Parts: sequence; structure tokens; C-alpha cells
Amino acid sequence: MTEPTDIGNSLAVTSRRRFLREGGVLVGGVVVAGGLSGSAASAATKDAGNLPPNVPEWMKTPGDPMGSQLYGTPSPFEKDVVKNIPKNLPQYLSASGRTPLQDLDGIITPNGLFYERHHGGVPTIDPAQHRLILHGLVDKPLIFTMEDIRRFPSESHIYFLECSGNPSYKRPYGKTASDLVGLLSCAEWTGVSLKLVLQEAGLQPGAKWVVAEGADAAALTRSIPIDKCLDDAMLVYSQNGERLRPQQGYPLRLLLPGFEGNMSIKWLRRLRVAAEPTYSREETSKYTDLMPDGSAREFTFYMEAKSIITRPSGGQRLSAPGFQEISGIAWSGRGKIRRVDVSVDNGNSWQEAQLQEPVLPRALTRFRLPWQWNGQAAVIQSRATDETGYVQPTLSELLAVRGDNYFYHNNAIWPWRIAAGGEVSNANA
Amino acid sequence: MTEPTDIGNSLAVTSRRRFLREGGVLVGGVVVAGGLSGSAASAATKDAGNLPPNVPEWMKTPGDPMGSQLYGTPSPFEKDVVKNIPKNLPQYLSASGRTPLQDLDGIITPNGLFYERHHGGVPTIDPAQHRLILHGLVDKPLIFTMEDIRRFPSESHIYFLECSGNPSYKRPYGKTASDLVGLLSCAEWTGVSLKLVLQEAGLQPGAKWVVAEGADAAALTRSIPIDKCLDDAMLVYSQNGERLRPQQGYPLRLLLPGFEGNMSIKWLRRLRVAAEPTYSREETSKYTDLMPDGSAREFTFYMEAKSIITRPSGGQRLSAPGFQEISGIAWSGRGKIRRVDVSVDNGNSWQEAQLQEPVLPRALTRFRLPWQWNGQAAVIQSRATDETGYVQPTLSELLAVRGDNYFYHNNAIWPWRIAAGGEVSNANA
Repeated sequence: MTEPTDIGNSLAVTSRRRFLREGGVLVGGVVVAGGLSGSAASAATKDAGNLPPNVPEWMKTPGDPMGSQLYGTPSPFEKDVVKNIPKNLPQYLSASGRTPLQDLDGIITPNGLFYERHHGGVPTIDPAQHRLILHGLVDKPLIFTMEDIRRFPSESHIYFLECSGNPSYKRPYGKTASDLVGLLSCAEWTGVSLKLVLQEAGLQPGAKWVVAEGADAAALTRSIPIDKCLDDAMLVYSQNGERLRPQQGYPLRLLLPGFEGNMSIKWLRRLRVAAEPTYSREETSKYTDLMPDGSAREFTFYMEAKSIITRPSGGQRLSAPGFQEISGIAWSGRGKIRRVDVSVDNGNSWQEAQLQEPVLPRALTRFRLPWQWNGQAAVIQSRATDETGYVQPTLSELLAVRGDNYFYHNNAIWPWRIAAGGEVSNANA
Repeated sequence: MTEPTDIGNSLAVTSRRRFLREGGVLVGGVVVAGGLSGSAASAATKDAGNLPPNVPEWMKTPGDPMGSQLYGTPSPFEKDVVKNIPKNLPQYLSASGRTPLQDLDGIITPNGLFYERHHGGVPTIDPAQHRLILHGLVDKPLIFTMEDIRRFPSESHIYFLECSGNPSYKRPYGKTASDLVGLLSCAEWTGVSLKLVLQEAGLQPGAKWVVAEGADAAALTRSIPIDKCLDDAMLVYSQNGERLRPQQGYPLRLLLPGFEGNMSIKWLRRLRVAAEPTYSREETSKYTDLMPDGSAREFTFYMEAKSIITRPSGGQRLSAPGFQEISGIAWSGRGKIRRVDVSVDNGNSWQEAQLQEPVLPRALTRFRLPWQWNGQAAVIQSRATDETGYVQPTLSELLAVRGDNYFYHNNAIWPWRIAAGGEVSNANA
């Protein structure tokens, strides 16, 4: 071990100002022209008083012992990174707990911050008592225990999940990325192919829909086209390695990759194979949209391509001019993200962002763009294109088609305004 | 919504026994010959008394309201899925908290169950006070705040992390997969390329090593070859989306993909660029191995290819003969896993397992093999091969080369014994 007590004094007076003032930074092999910053030339000595203590207090005594947390929790200094719960929404009708996207990196949402949206509260289900019933147009109606479900061959996939009401088309839109699109999360799911389970029961001729029902007090019920059920639909029991959290459907949920979140029925207790959809409350009164001509768009399954810049984003503040990485997330219910373009000049010009590999179908994709902020006011925004060629629209383009009564599936480009002082706010608010 | 109260009565008497008795299951396009089971022919009626209640209790009243957990926790029915902490290890010398691998699915370890191993307890560090010092053979010694680190371009990768003492070469080996290799976890990490940070300071001629020091009471210190520092080494601040947990180095750690875990210095406070390694306690007295000829193997960085079956594994029990999925994890510090073979006949023959895509370099890879258990005693085991062609060895092969004093880097094949009654135990114990 070398001598930590000598280090502070032996260093030349240096600080983050130097790294901001000098040198170039490589990102993905591309040289950022002009270095990291230009304007803080005299700041190098300002931090001299801020040199670290030679040995910080926490090195002087042993820290917390092993086993002080059998199941870990975040640092107390991260206590404000929690689910974002709008206060004005009725508890069992439209309450939601949103993921704090502006505080997260990468694509995986930790289970403690995965978004929640439920319609009759979160049931506490004993997995030993839970049953899944499969009946209707099948050769053999079946009842499964959780142990039965666990005995099927398993598969694991990273998929996003997003609520269809994310965000509203109307003011107030909210201030942060979480306020806007926090009903969005992404996890590695493990479970059973629904196709396998349906094959076990045997589909009868005329089987065109599967009606799924949750074991919550709302008995949330949705109808799913048989094609989806025989494609990538899953019965899921684990999320990011461990068993589902109660808020995400413990002990068993449906998972329909790329479809609006409410269809991935939580606390799954029943699958009825049918010739027709059931036209439940959640696919008529709710999750259906009124078009300007008076017709209704129903069964709007797919979450179309979308993206948002999470850093910098609303509520944050740029500390100084110079290098800033613009980072965000993009996703599409149709498959993979093909590209993301970013504008830093209010949509006048666009630059292609770098996508973090691996780009996975129906998962979040992290994008990044190096940027030199000149300290002036700016409007920044991102635009996703998916592998079908579909391009994320503007809010005005969506409103022109959908009119005043449309509520769901707002996948508009969302701009952030950066003030000369560095404050970031919702440019549509 | 259809009528949940009518369902129980309208079903034919069916149960998991039927799914175990009849039909074939497809896995990855391969038909499992013989169906799921053969021996429980008369069991179909036994579960008639176990039909689910028509409406379970938890559907009759609203569940927990939104916001009852601002940061979520697992179901109370999963309270036993926690870190596995051996009781006989000295608190600050060799105590460890192991991941319960036998209870997990997929490849991502949830942050609450990520393994821990520390040498002076877990410090509680205020990120606003934390500094990283970079000095030694550099043009510009630098001090970074966490805000400085966050301003660098970022990247995210899924990598495993494994302790080099995982498991012992000597009895007692332990009973479960966690006892054996639970000092192993995998997460999506976000941070800065160490190469970028070193370039910012400017390396001087003769810079061959970087000596990294943690801000814990042990000031844990390791020397890292400069080639690794200029390759895929990272300074990491986030894990599975959120900021690092205290046990994993909050607010900043080094991450050396594929190297033994103790080198990925947690609570990172100092990087000294040097011409020589520092020969700290943790690379001489510890983490060095004595060979039979009296020489010492030092700087044994890479975690070689390895695998283990996690289901079924020690401490579990097969409930009935018939179809069983064999599932496990494989990994290599050298890159990607190329294949995993599984034997169900005590190593006499091997079958290639299916690898879950995407297979990522230096990450866990989940493998699976469908199996018809005939109800008789069996020994099962897995054998990983990585993209370099290296094949996971047997324990006897390792012991023959390494002798009696070797302690670290045991990557042996580990067999599980299945008794005729279905109990699974450590076949080497």
C-alpha cells in the first residue's frame, strides 16, 4: 500500500476545471473537436481549497459489517431516487408509480424502481395457493400450480414495458422525464413460452383470442389475439433474476413484448381461449380512443417507436459550458431501434446518436451524443426510427391526426429547453 | 369480464398431473421424445380437492395502495431468498455475502442479492465529499469530483464479477450452488472508460501499471497492468440502472471485466500510474498461490471458463419423475461462452445445452437442457467451453497440477448427485 496521507500535498493544484478546459475526449473512436470546454480559463485555482482530506473519515474506522443487510438497499445518499407518484390521481382508478428515468443509466430498471400501475391495489398472493386456469376452446382444460409452471422449459429475455397513457396529450405535461414517460421500465424476464402452455392444452378450431384475467380486486381482463399468444408471449415468474415483485404481478404475470402494458396481465389466474374478444372494461371504456370522425380505435396493441433524452432533462441543470454528453433511451414495440437522431438547435438540424450495443428487440436502447454546450439557450430533442422504418412523430403531427379526445399512445418527440443559466425544462409546458 | 365464480365447477378434473402425463413439449424447436412424464398415470384425480377457490381471498378486497412502497421490495413469500453469509468467517478478513444462485433465473443479479466481499467493512461515503485522485506517471495529476466523473462520456455493459476464492479446493465444500460459487453475480454497469480518464491526464513513458486504492478502512490496493486499463476497464457509478449500492463501492468503483473480483476496487479514491506493481498485501500474502514446486503464482488476473447447474442443484428436490429442465450459468473472463455440455450419467456422455441469446462477452450465459428423469439415482454436471477453446477442467485435473497449497481460481466442473427420492446434493461432498 502506498501512502494516502502524502497524496493531497504532493499534487499540483488541479481540479475538474483542468479536465473541462484542456484536452480532447474520444467517444466511440470519434474525436470531440475543440476539447471539453473553452470558457473557464481562470477557474483552475478556485478548487485549491477543495482538495480532499488526505484520509477521509470513512477510512479511519471499519465500515458496516457483513450481513448488516441480508437484502441490500441503496445508499442513504440516494434516498430521493424513488418512484414518482402523482398526488392527484384516484387511488384505485388511475394511480401510478413512475420510474425516475432521469436518475437512471443503461437500460435495466432495478426492480425497486420498476413502474407500477394497477386498478385494484396490489394483492398479496401466496404462491402455494395460486392457480392458473386454462380453458375455453382447448382440448384439455388445465389447472396449473406455480410448481407446474416452473417445470416447463424456460426462457429469458430483456423487454421494455410501457403504459399506453404515457404521457398525456394535454397540459400540464409535467416537469421531468419521469413525469412525462416514467410509466416505462425494462427488465430481464424469465418464464415459459405461452405457446408451449397452449400446445399442452391443445387449441381447438376457431381459437382466435385468449382472454386473460388477473387475480387482483379489479379482475383486470384483456383479450389477446392468438397470433401474439403463439409468437413471443410469455408467462413470467422472474424479473431481473429474482421472483416478480408484488407490484409486477407476483407470483405470475403475462408478458406481451411490445404491447401496451395493461395487457401484460399481472397476478395471472385465468386464460380463456375464445373465438371473439371479450370487450372488457379495459378494452372499451378504457384503452380505446375516440377519433375526430366519431369512430373508436380499439385494440391498439403496439407501442410505437419513441425516445426521450434523460440527461440533461427537465429539473436538471448544466453546471458549466463545455462538454456535455446527451444521453437517453429509445424503444419500439415493433422490434429493434435502427437509429436515433438528436437535435440541439430546436429541430433545425439533426445528428445521429451512438447506440449502446447490444441493441435488442423490444428492449430499451441507450443512445448517446457528445455535445459542446456554448452556454446559450438551446432546445434539445431526440427522434427514434425503428427497424420497420417508422419514425417517431412530433406532438403536432400526432394531434393533427388524433384530435382532442385521443388519450393513449402518445409517442411524440419531446423537447427540453436549456436556459442560458443551464436550467433544463419542458419545452412543451 | 367473464365470470370467475363459474370457472372452477365447469372445468373437467384436471391438474398438473395431466400436463406431466401427456403431450410433448417443444423446446428450441426440439421435440422432447416421450412426453413430459410417464409414471403418474393414476394421479389425475388426486388433485380434485385442490381445485382453486372460485374467487381467491385476495380478489375480494382492494390490495395495497399505490405508494405503499416508494422503493419496492420482494414479496414476503420470498423472505428466505437473501444473501448467504457463512457464519464461521472472520468479519473483516474473509467474511462474504453470497448470491443465492439456486433461486435465481436468467443472467441479471438483482442489486439486493449481488454478492459482497470486503476487507474493512462497508463505508458510508458522501458522494459530494468523495474525490478520485489520479497521479504518478502522468502529465497532469488530476482530482475528480463525482460530478466531474459524471461529465465524461459514458458506456454501459453487462459483465459478471466473481471472487477468486470461489469455491475452496478442500472439504467442506458446502451444500448449495450458493455455497459453492455464490461469490458470483452479473449486472449492467454504467460508467466511464478508464482509458478516457487516463488520456485526460496523459500517460508518461514507462507507465506500465496503475495502482488502485479504495476508500475503505482496509485501503484495499491492487496493481493493474496498463494494457487492461487501456482496454475495457471502467470507472463505474451505476449498476442495473441505479447508483451503485454501498456494498458494491458507492459512489465509484473500478470494474475490470473478467478479472478476479477483488481487483475491481470499490470506493475508488486513487489511481497511481507506475512503472512497477506495488506488491500490496492483496497481491502477495493474499491472491497469490503456492505451487507444488515452491514457486508462487502471482497476478493471476483472469477468471477462466466455468459453469454450474443451478436447477436442479444442491438442497433442491425433484418432485416427480419425468420432464425436468436442467438450467445453469456459464461464464469466462476471456470472452464469450462458445458452448456448454451437460452430462446426466456421471460424465460418461455429454449433450450440448442450448445457450440463451444474446451471448455476451464476460457476462453470465444461461444454458438449458431438457431432460427426462427416470426416477433413478443420477449424477449431473456441466462443462463450459469459451471462445478461446479453453475447456472447464475437472477438480482432479486441477488438483493434479496445483497441489495442496493452492487456494484461488477453482473453476472445476461441479457434479450434483440426485437420489432416487429426488434429493439433490453435492456429489463431491
